[in-house]
Amino acid sequence: MSQLMNRAYNFGAGPAMLPASVMEQAQAEFLNWNHLGMSVMEVGHRTAPFMDLMAELTTLFREVLVIPDHYQVLFLGGSARTQFAQIPLNFLSEHEKAGYLTTGMWSSMAYEEASRLKKAYCVTDAQPTQYKSIPDPKTWIIEPDTAYLYYTPNETVNGIRCPIIPDMKGVPLIADMTSCLLTEPLNIENYGMIFAGAQKNIANAGMTVAIVRDDLIARIHDDKIPTMLDYRTYVTHQSMYATPPTFNCYLAYLMLKWIVSEGGLSVMSSRLNEKSEALYQVIDDSDFYYSDIEKPFRSKINVCFKLKKNALESEFLIGAEARGLMALKGHRAVGGLRASLYNAMPLEGVRALIEYMHYFAKVNA
Amino acid sequence: MSQLMNRAYNFGAGPAMLPASVMEQAQAEFLNWNHLGMSVMEVGHRTAPFMDLMAELTTLFREVLVIPDHYQVLFLGGSARTQFAQIPLNFLSEHEKAGYLTTGMWSSMAYEEASRLKKAYCVTDAQPTQYKSIPDPKTWIIEPDTAYLYYTPNETVNGIRCPIIPDMKGVPLIADMTSCLLTEPLNIENYGMIFAGAQKNIANAGMTVAIVRDDLIARIHDDKIPTMLDYRTYVTHQSMYATPPTFNCYLAYLMLKWIVSEGGLSVMSSRLNEKSEALYQVIDDSDFYYSDIEKPFRSKINVCFKLKKNALESEFLIGAEARGLMALKGHRAVGGLRASLYNAMPLEGVRALIEYMHYFAKVNA
Repeated sequence: MSQLMNRAYNFGAGPAMLPASVMEQAQAEFLNWNHLGMSVMEVGHRTAPFMDLMAELTTLFREVLVIPDHYQVLFLGGSARTQFAQIPLNFLSEHEKAGYLTTGMWSSMAYEEASRLKKAYCVTDAQPTQYKSIPDPKTWIIEPDTAYLYYTPNETVNGIRCPIIPDMKGVPLIADMTSCLLTEPLNIENYGMIFAGAQKNIANAGMTVAIVRDDLIARIHDDKIPTMLDYRTYVTHQSMYATPPTFNCYLAYLMLKWIVSEGGLSVMSSRLNEKSEALYQVIDDSDFYYSDIEKPFRSKINVCFKLKKNALESEFLIGAEARGLMALKGHRAVGGLRASLYNAMPLEGVRALIEYMHYFAKVNA
Repeated sequence: MSQLMNRAYNFGAGPAMLPASVMEQAQAEFLNWNHLGMSVMEVGHRTAPFMDLMAELTTLFREVLVIPDHYQVLFLGGSARTQFAQIPLNFLSEHEKAGYLTTGMWSSMAYEEASRLKKAYCVTDAQPTQYKSIPDPKTWIIEPDTAYLYYTPNETVNGIRCPIIPDMKGVPLIADMTSCLLTEPLNIENYGMIFAGAQKNIANAGMTVAIVRDDLIARIHDDKIPTMLDYRTYVTHQSMYATPPTFNCYLAYLMLKWIVSEGGLSVMSSRLNEKSEALYQVIDDSDFYYSDIEKPFRSKINVCFKLKKNALESEFLIGAEARGLMALKGHRAVGGLRASLYNAMPLEGVRALIEYMHYFAKVNA
């Protein structure tokens, strides 16, 4: 019996599910990659086969996301959270400040880090709505001497998304797309920089991808930035100044090949719409479940919902796990339930969840 | 036929070979770890099974290296090179400086980074010997207001090691053990801090382990350290502030279990001695090969050597690869040949190399 027949549906916010076919390929060549007699993770990063892999990875990333030539694609080791400091350290000079749209937990933490290290202010703050909606753009304030504007299009903890691309009046826009990069086609030209941790839609945990416009790189002048936090280091050395997280790079390459073979980002996007719409439909049609995020701001990727009979939450989670529907517990900061619907979550997983939700509502009505 | 029968011997300096039994286990449970119906890299880092793994990893690390309670064991995402900045940023206040023993390429780069960001000086500099030996400790200078002393016991590029633990007159000693941690028993109490990138003896590339004495952590006071570069973040959150590189943590756990099952660090150390002595013996007994590192300073881990008939180097490397003896080319900065003998390199690999060296010398005499 195939190991995959018992595969669980992992609805956790990340590290997340990866596509079965990608995992099967990685397993098959785990001991012998590229006929080299060793695993890809045992191969030196400056050998020809690995350098080729990095070049192909970069090319494929550019192709899948249609990234113009005046943007750099950088592969950084470590967690995306390092960017919360790295962005202000690279892009803010002494007389400048950065504007933050604080629309959930992650953007608020990015704002706190930037404020501590440099000068930053809130363009808008969704905290007064308890992150259930985002204030009207007419109320947003962009101050003079703003070097960049920062936002998080999808907030995994709060289950809220920014439904528009903010119009930033020519100020470079930086987006934390950790949870949404590769889930839909983008017009890269709308952004000065995009970054994303790998562990949702790109690869396994331990890598961050950054897409940075050349004119932002050219602005960096501070000579006290730690070398490993200086984007110029990654540009000059094509992400190979230090040893990159080689297995994550390999897995990212397999993931991109998988996206292409499935039909590209427009297919990822329509699947995501189908999955999230089906789930919100059940929630909205029900007297048992509810979502308190205002409709235009509901995340497609992290569907947060609650039980009206709050006391049944643990029972709901236990029953779900027994059916292989894993990690549906909401983030500890907000409670409730959360179904994360990254690219690798198949529609069958969502159908199984919906079936369970109907069943659980019926027996507990 | 087992895939392992065609396994190559990778003599590269890192990412390096991993033990066959570790790789086989990782492959076997690649799709279904811990009966969870998913890969360990698909499991959320805040789930109970992964938290258990991290706790066991930490415990095992402490046991294998006999780490006293007043040291913290921290698992950091990304490359060890980040430490070149992180150490001065954490441990140097404005009126202090750091002393560096520059005994090869890596310690020299660490010194350059510290000098650029804070105040640092050379305790001793092996550059005038072209990194063939290390100046007599009697000539070393430790200046007043030195917050820490930094050295690299084994230099992978130059193939040189520091044969003694420097006597630092009570100043905390920080050691970059990227290439030598877990190759021999240590008295941890000699050090204020030890760090090591994972990709030699610990796991795959993308993680750095730091062992830091509590009094050094207590010294950190700068409030402008990026959160992800502040050691206190990792202490407070048990290395789980941001998502750790989960697969690397898992593999490190398997590697430590393997070390224990093989007999521990004293066995690793005696095997390393056996492998390196056999190789240097062939070099020293030969009219064909030579090492220009002075004997007391020769690295056991990265055996650098040259052909007297320098022009045959490419032919040597091509013939080696045809026999599955991979990545014997020296670092581009120093040329020549290099055989790296990390824990996972079996004695049979060294024997195969020696056999080839005899053969190549004979046909090209």
